[in-house]
Amino acid sequence: MDIQIGRGKTARRAYGIDEIALIPGNRTLDPSLADTKWRIGNIEREIPIIASAMDGVVDVRMAVLLSELGALGVLNLEGIQCRYADPQPILERISTVGKDEFVGLMQELYAKPVEPKLIEQRIQEIKQQGGIAAVSATPIGATKYGEIVANAGADLFFVQATVVSTAHLAPESQTPLDLAQFCRDMPMPVILGNCVTYDVTLNLMKAGAAGVLVGIGPGAACTSRGVLGIGIPQVTAIADCAAARDDYYQETGNYVPIIADGGLITGGDICKCIACGADGVMIGSPFARAAEAPGNGYHWGMATPSPILPRGTRIRVGTTGSLEQILRGPAQLDDGTHNLLGALKTSMGTLGAKDIKEMQQVEVAIAPSLLTEGKVYQKAQQLGMGK
Amino acid sequence: MDIQIGRGKTARRAYGIDEIALIPGNRTLDPSLADTKWRIGNIEREIPIIASAMDGVVDVRMAVLLSELGALGVLNLEGIQCRYADPQPILERISTVGKDEFVGLMQELYAKPVEPKLIEQRIQEIKQQGGIAAVSATPIGATKYGEIVANAGADLFFVQATVVSTAHLAPESQTPLDLAQFCRDMPMPVILGNCVTYDVTLNLMKAGAAGVLVGIGPGAACTSRGVLGIGIPQVTAIADCAAARDDYYQETGNYVPIIADGGLITGGDICKCIACGADGVMIGSPFARAAEAPGNGYHWGMATPSPILPRGTRIRVGTTGSLEQILRGPAQLDDGTHNLLGALKTSMGTLGAKDIKEMQQVEVAIAPSLLTEGKVYQKAQQLGMGK
Amino acid sequence: MDIQIGRGKTARRAYGIDEIALIPGNRTLDPSLADTKWRIGNIEREIPIIASAMDGVVDVRMAVLLSELGALGVLNLEGIQCRYADPQPILERISTVGKDEFVGLMQELYAKPVEPKLIEQRIQEIKQQGGIAAVSATPIGATKYGEIVANAGADLFFVQATVVSTAHLAPESQTPLDLAQFCRDMPMPVILGNCVTYDVTLNLMKAGAAGVLVGIGPGAACTSRGVLGIGIPQVTAIADCAAARDDYYQETGNYVPIIADGGLITGGDICKCIACGADGVMIGSPFARAAEAPGNGYHWGMATPSPILPRGTRIRVGTTGSLEQILRGPAQLDDGTHNLLGALKTSMGTLGAKDIKEMQQVEVAIAPSLLTEGKVYQKAQQLGMGK
Amino acid sequence: MDIQIGRGKTARRAYGIDEIALIPGNRTLDPSLADTKWRIGNIEREIPIIASAMDGVVDVRMAVLLSELGALGVLNLEGIQCRYADPQPILERISTVGKDEFVGLMQELYAKPVEPKLIEQRIQEIKQQGGIAAVSATPIGATKYGEIVANAGADLFFVQATVVSTAHLAPESQTPLDLAQFCRDMPMPVILGNCVTYDVTLNLMKAGAAGVLVGIGPGAACTSRGVLGIGIPQVTAIADCAAARDDYYQETGNYVPIIADGGLITGGDICKCIACGADGVMIGSPFARAAEAPGNGYHWGMATPSPILPRGTRIRVGTTGSLEQILRGPAQLDDGTHNLLGALKTSMGTLGAKDIKEMQQVEVAIAPSLLTEGKVYQKAQQLGMGK
Repeated sequence: MDIQIGRGKTARRAYGIDEIALIPGNRTLDPSLADTKWRIGNIEREIPIIASAMDGVVDVRMAVLLSELGALGVLNLEGIQCRYADPQPILERISTVGKDEFVGLMQELYAKPVEPKLIEQRIQEIKQQGGIAAVSATPIGATKYGEIVANAGADLFFVQATVVSTAHLAPESQTPLDLAQFCRDMPMPVILGNCVTYDVTLNLMKAGAAGVLVGIGPGAACTSRGVLGIGIPQVTAIADCAAARDDYYQETGNYVPIIADGGLITGGDICKCIACGADGVMIGSPFARAAEAPGNGYHWGMATPSPILPRGTRIRVGTTGSLEQILRGPAQLDDGTHNLLGALKTSMGTLGAKDIKEMQQVEVAIAPSLLTEGKVYQKAQQLGMGK
Repeated sequence: MDIQIGRGKTARRAYGIDEIALIPGNRTLDPSLADTKWRIGNIEREIPIIASAMDGVVDVRMAVLLSELGALGVLNLEGIQCRYADPQPILERISTVGKDEFVGLMQELYAKPVEPKLIEQRIQEIKQQGGIAAVSATPIGATKYGEIVANAGADLFFVQATVVSTAHLAPESQTPLDLAQFCRDMPMPVILGNCVTYDVTLNLMKAGAAGVLVGIGPGAACTSRGVLGIGIPQVTAIADCAAARDDYYQETGNYVPIIADGGLITGGDICKCIACGADGVMIGSPFARAAEAPGNGYHWGMATPSPILPRGTRIRVGTTGSLEQILRGPAQLDDGTHNLLGALKTSMGTLGAKDIKEMQQVEVAIAPSLLTEGKVYQKAQQLGMGK
Repeated sequence: MDIQIGRGKTARRAYGIDEIALIPGNRTLDPSLADTKWRIGNIEREIPIIASAMDGVVDVRMAVLLSELGALGVLNLEGIQCRYADPQPILERISTVGKDEFVGLMQELYAKPVEPKLIEQRIQEIKQQGGIAAVSATPIGATKYGEIVANAGADLFFVQATVVSTAHLAPESQTPLDLAQFCRDMPMPVILGNCVTYDVTLNLMKAGAAGVLVGIGPGAACTSRGVLGIGIPQVTAIADCAAARDDYYQETGNYVPIIADGGLITGGDICKCIACGADGVMIGSPFARAAEAPGNGYHWGMATPSPILPRGTRIRVGTTGSLEQILRGPAQLDDGTHNLLGALKTSMGTLGAKDIKEMQQVEVAIAPSLLTEGKVYQKAQQLGMGK
Repeated sequence: MDIQIGRGKTARRAYGIDEIALIPGNRTLDPSLADTKWRIGNIEREIPIIASAMDGVVDVRMAVLLSELGALGVLNLEGIQCRYADPQPILERISTVGKDEFVGLMQELYAKPVEPKLIEQRIQEIKQQGGIAAVSATPIGATKYGEIVANAGADLFFVQATVVSTAHLAPESQTPLDLAQFCRDMPMPVILGNCVTYDVTLNLMKAGAAGVLVGIGPGAACTSRGVLGIGIPQVTAIADCAAARDDYYQETGNYVPIIADGGLITGGDICKCIACGADGVMIGSPFARAAEAPGNGYHWGMATPSPILPRGTRIRVGTTGSLEQILRGPAQLDDGTHNLLGALKTSMGTLGAKDIKEMQQVEVAIAPSLLTEGKVYQKAQQLGMGK
């Protein structure tokens, strides 16, 4: 599998979502018979889709709505919501600032410290309205706010870094988060990520993860690949990490779901990730387009605020419909961004997959949807260029 | 042939039409000597091209004209033509509605039920004018309207679903169409599709298909790949299904043609599909550009009307000439969309293929017409961008 | 080398000019030491570049100028020059007609028959001014005008069809050109083409060709691939045909040059073709940009006039300098289209190749210059799109 | 590893920077622990980044500033700085001339001869201000000005040609530079380049190079590939040359760094080159965007001035921040062109690499960031095209 890229170096070919397509088999299924249920920690959900812990995507209201609709939303504890008692004017500034001032504004806004009281308040607001309180923090944030989160009664805790590993070297002045200890200490299931390899997935599961997030660098609002050179295409990452999950399950009897995170835009993308082995997916930009989303039609990466190395970009995604339309339909757009559940069920029906486990086994083809001259011409015409 | 795309998953490389080119051999042939005849069911046609069962492509008039010109057109029994006694104003609304209201309008227009009387009427209109009455329905429509179609004396019956299989699981309240029973019951040849695999092709032939449609996801007005993640490039699908046809013929002596359907735009595309093993092709958008086409210069997918999951897009294809020019020339455009028969004959001559069976054997190269920097620049200049 | 593209079909991977790059070796050379001489038939030329037999590229004046500058130009005997005593107003109409009327105008203009007297006259005009009279005709034209061309004293005769083969099946009413007989009958060397395979190259050499043109479908003004599905990337075609030349030479001691024809735009393209085995190249569009070119800044394919199947496109190439600048410099453009001889010499120097035979042996890498996201963005900015 | 590209020719697949991505391993590291130090000749630097010897990038002031910031800048001895006592008005003309007159102006400006006195003066200016005086010349310039450079006390001497080799054939009237003799004669370390192969790297090291520049044809302001057909993708070139360095070190105990030069734009590009084996990188366009850069927001190739074969292009790169921001941050852009050191440290931390030697060992994936239809559409929208 190793390819010689030069005399001194080999590399492995990795595949991205745009490079594959799903192939129907011998059986088809009525979509109504497709069962999309999955379980993360002790929580069962009808829809295997999680809204990303991003400030333009999830606030208290979105978290509650997503819970009601059968999905899940994760609130970022280190974002706008827990820095500002009234996030509304802040969000408005983000969505109206000029492109050139965006990075500067973000650095300014995120310089205000996180207020522990707001963490408690947001979690309680979600729970009081009947939502599932899933929250997210970086490893450093988890160390600082873990106890508050535990006491506030959060249901799920996502600890996310660009790359999380069980072997992190820190300066002597810092104590890196002991992930295994943290999982034991927390009263609720802890989901860890992001990672992209078999070994790290296995280590995180051994450390007690109730779920592992998979994906580094492929997201629309993520510029890791340009800035750091890092990024592994999702298909290969998911297949590798799914293999770790299966081996861990075989060994321990403990089934820890893996969640594809980053770079997913359409229903087709979600279907492909599950077909490559994911149990669920985490998506940002499709939800940022909901009328209820806090981003007012904008979407931005959470890596942006770093004063050292701003990454991420603000993208105008527009508002295309209600959250319900996006998640459960009826669809009013035909580009795969409305009725994600319907798309998943229809795809499963077409592929003859009765449940998520069967969907993980469907046949996959490498079939690059690369641009050809004809397609560019066609696209250019659709965009109104030329005559 | 299997490629490891990750630790837990293998995939097969599949090829699309834009990735191949045909290679001349040692012999050439005067185009006038190229014989393009083919046979579907009990019907022989000079031109192996079928117009798709789409509302912007085939109405009664087009079906008659196509028959006269040596080809074939399929009328969709579940489209506008059999829902509205006077389809003209309906078609006009479709071609004049704004882009944003298109999906909504389609959902409204296709909510009106199919009228069995109109099915009968349309078939008779075609036959009275001397045309071949080829009609199409979904499996559900075939169950409902099969008897009417049979009584009305249709010549060919196309039963088409995104993916048709002989093993379809339906809810208990529904009885899925028994394809084998249906083929036995119908007095006319039944063509089944679409499929993309060797096994399903073989099963459909065993079920009594008089033809098998090949192609899922590659069409211009089809967004299966984006919405569902499903779609297999045509070249591989055709070659696989052609192998099933050949094996079935070897076993039974019954030659059942396969028809490439979806994603074909130019004469070159048609030539390539036959070179990969197709006996005929079904095309939509090239005919939607005929002055006689019911779509008024627009083309749209038949999957659009679903109120749950609209797929397909309306594309402005324009009107570029008469149906005769498009099918038999003389060509007035040099982009491969006029004189499709002339293109096929010239290609066969250049490749030294005397008939369709020889054309199926010509040499093929993998030769991606991928975009390079230079081509984009050139294209941009042709489109009048830059200086 | 065969790749399974589906169960019923294999294909070979073929490579195009944009997919390769030349790799320097251990030796370099001062460009002044690079010897670019080559020989076609009994004629030796300093520059291995031939101007295509296209109406926008070569007329009498261009043929003479090209001869003086050390290269060669081929006059098309079935083009404007031998249909009209005064081609000037005709060429003007071609370069000023609107895009939509172009194909119609071409069909009209080329309907006027070729005048044998003009053939004689043009050849004599070239020779009287000291030029090398290289002319071109289709196989049918060669049959008709061969004797006139011979009597007029042409120096080289190019017989060109899209695909020329020694085994051409024609209707009984026609007698196809016997290429071997024709080569024997003509008093001057006959160059045959175009072809793309080892076998046909070998057959044409056995038939007496003094040169073989290689290339089908890759040219800028050629739309064979779109219309007919036919076209083999130049790199593979050249390498295959060069192998035939070498084998033929080994067997007979007769060295018959092969000439890469089609799809070459820059000096780099010329260098790559020779590095893959070509002895010389035939180019159109780079010369169509000369101030002296008859096309007035336009370039069009010679396949266009067919009333049955127009192929080819008129491209606005612009006028960028004198023929001398384009061929021998000094260059005023830095995009590889000026000073083609200088580019070839510099490339040979950089690669350490002393002559054309050594240049044919330099190392080649497969190194696709594919478009990436970053490049499109950059290009878009250069074109003034976006901000 | 050899691929048959045709019957007569094989080629090797070479990989470019855009085709790979770096993969995190099992360990992560706090970026503050990442040690980026490297050594070239007898000089140790904190940042393994060298500013290219290009007129729009390095003048005396830039060389001094780069030294202060922990990096290095190379002054081109054959550029504007040593031809004109007052380069300011010259640089202004270059940045304000129209696109069409650019090549002509460059040919005029570089026709003025290099003044040996200015060479001496520039070197002393750098040293007097505490900078490291690294200078560059072509092999011919090195012959002419070597003694002056040595006497002026330059710290590092870069001898650069498009391709430098130890076996250069020159006309009898010329004596090519004997690289080994030159390295022995010079009192300071001599860096040689550019090359792309194992063999030439080894030969240059044996000749006494204190560093080898790697890269031919991949740069933004370099058009070698279009003009000459020459160019090898950086990833393969670096890996090949790194293997030569390692073998040379094993044999001699002498560690000679290799420097990736050309085609690098972002922090991610730098990280990838080191991950493939480079010890340092040389970059032009990122520094041309510094407020302090002499190019006034423009960047152009040094091959341009040739009156025979102008190569290179002037690109408007704009001015995006101070040199310090570009090199050490804080970043105000999120596209990977600010805070290159921060990017490298963060990438090393994410990949768990403690120093440059460990960074050279991280895992690499072939993961083309190719354009897909969706990405072009997205990009087009970002550029404000279409609706």
